[in-house]
Amino acid sequence: MAHLLHLDSSLAGDNSVSRAVAREYVANWQEKHPDGTVTHRDLAAAPPAHLDWTVVSAGMTPEDQRTPEQTEAFKARLGYIGEVTAADEVVITAPMYNWSLPTTLKAWIDQLIFVGVTVADADNPGLFHGKKVTVVTTQGGSYAPGAPKEGWNHVSPYLAHVLEALGADNVEFVNVEMTLSVVNPALAQFTDVFHASRASASEAVKTRALV
Amino acid sequence: MAHLLHLDSSLAGDNSVSRAVAREYVANWQEKHPDGTVTHRDLAAAPPAHLDWTVVSAGMTPEDQRTPEQTEAFKARLGYIGEVTAADEVVITAPMYNWSLPTTLKAWIDQLIFVGVTVADADNPGLFHGKKVTVVTTQGGSYAPGAPKEGWNHVSPYLAHVLEALGADNVEFVNVEMTLSVVNPALAQFTDVFHASRASASEAVKTRALV
Repeated sequence: MAHLLHLDSSLAGDNSVSRAVAREYVANWQEKHPDGTVTHRDLAAAPPAHLDWTVVSAGMTPEDQRTPEQTEAFKARLGYIGEVTAADEVVITAPMYNWSLPTTLKAWIDQLIFVGVTVADADNPGLFHGKKVTVVTTQGGSYAPGAPKEGWNHVSPYLAHVLEALGADNVEFVNVEMTLSVVNPALAQFTDVFHASRASASEAVKTRALV
Repeated sequence: MAHLLHLDSSLAGDNSVSRAVAREYVANWQEKHPDGTVTHRDLAAAPPAHLDWTVVSAGMTPEDQRTPEQTEAFKARLGYIGEVTAADEVVITAPMYNWSLPTTLKAWIDQLIFVGVTVADADNPGLFHGKKVTVVTTQGGSYAPGAPKEGWNHVSPYLAHVLEALGADNVEFVNVEMTLSVVNPALAQFTDVFHASRASASEAVKTRALV
C-alpha cells in the first residue's frame, strides 16, 4: 500500500509557506492514493537529538554491550531510519534559516546518515534508493542568479548531496522565494516574485504528487 | 584587558582534533596575554536551543509584553550575543558532520543572527566587526581539489558567509583534513596527509594567536 512520509521543519506553524506547500502535496497525493498511509513527522514540534557521542558510540558497540543510554539513543535513530524505510514517497520541507537548514532538519539528517547501513556504497543502494523524494525549499529573500546574495543558498546544494549519499535516485526540488515580501514592507516590491513562485510551487507539487 | 572566546562543538571529547587545535590556540594566546580572560563555551556539553517561534517572536515583542517563556529564551539569546561582544578574539571549532556543521554550532549561529542587532547593515558594523576570529575546521576525509567529494564541504563556505553577514573583517580558517585516517584502516594510506595538515594547523594557530 502506498505510504508517504511527510516531514516538516518550519518553526512558523500556520504561517509557514513550506508547510502549506507540503500540505498541498499531501492533499494531491491522497486524491491519488485514497487508501494510502501518511506519516507526518514534525521536527519543529519534536526535534531529534543532536548527534552526540552516546549515539555514535552505540553504533560501534555490540547490542548486548550497550548502556541503557546508548540503547535508547540507538533505538531513536533506528526509528527515524525506519520511517523512511517504510515509505515509498517522502516529502521534505526545508525553509532557509540564516542561509542554511533548520537545526532540527540537520539533526534528522544526522540521525539518518549511518555508514554501512543507510549510506549508498558498493553493497547497499542506500536508504532513499527507489523512493520518490520531493523537497520543498523556501527562502525569505531570493538567491536567484543576479540577486545580491547569489551563492548564499546553502540549503538546496547541501540537501542534493545528502540525498545522493543516501542513494536517492528520484528527487525533485520545489522552491518558493521571497516569502518575507508579504510581511516585510522593505521587500514589498518583490511580492510579485513571491506570488509567482508560490503559484508555480502549487502546480509543481500537484504534478509531482499525481505522477 | 584581552578577552578570548573559545568555542567548541565537537562531540568527540578528548579524541577531537578540532578541540586539540583550539587548545593550542588558547595556550599560545595565554602566553601572549598572561593576564587575559578566556571564556570557554562548549556547545556539545550545553547545546543552545533550536531556533523556535518563542525566541523569534520574543524579538518582535516589546520587553514588557513578553511571556515568561519569551523572556527566558530572549535572555539566553542575549547571553550568547553578549559573550561575543565581550571578547576581542574568538576561536571557533567546526568539525564537519555529514558534510555540514554540527547542529549545536548552527544553533549557536541561529541565536547570534539577529537582524537589526548583530547583522551588519548601513547603521551597524555587525557583531564580529573588529574582532580577530579564527575558525578551526576539520574533516574526516578530504575535500581538496581533485578529491572524489570536492565540492561537498558545506562548512567553510557557509561559515565565511555567516561571519561576513555578522560584520567580521579579520577571519582566518585553519584546516585539518583526513582525521579519520588514523582510526579507519580503509583510509590508512592518507595518514601522511593528516599528519601534514595537523602539523600545519599547529603552526598556523601559533602564528595566529601570537599576532
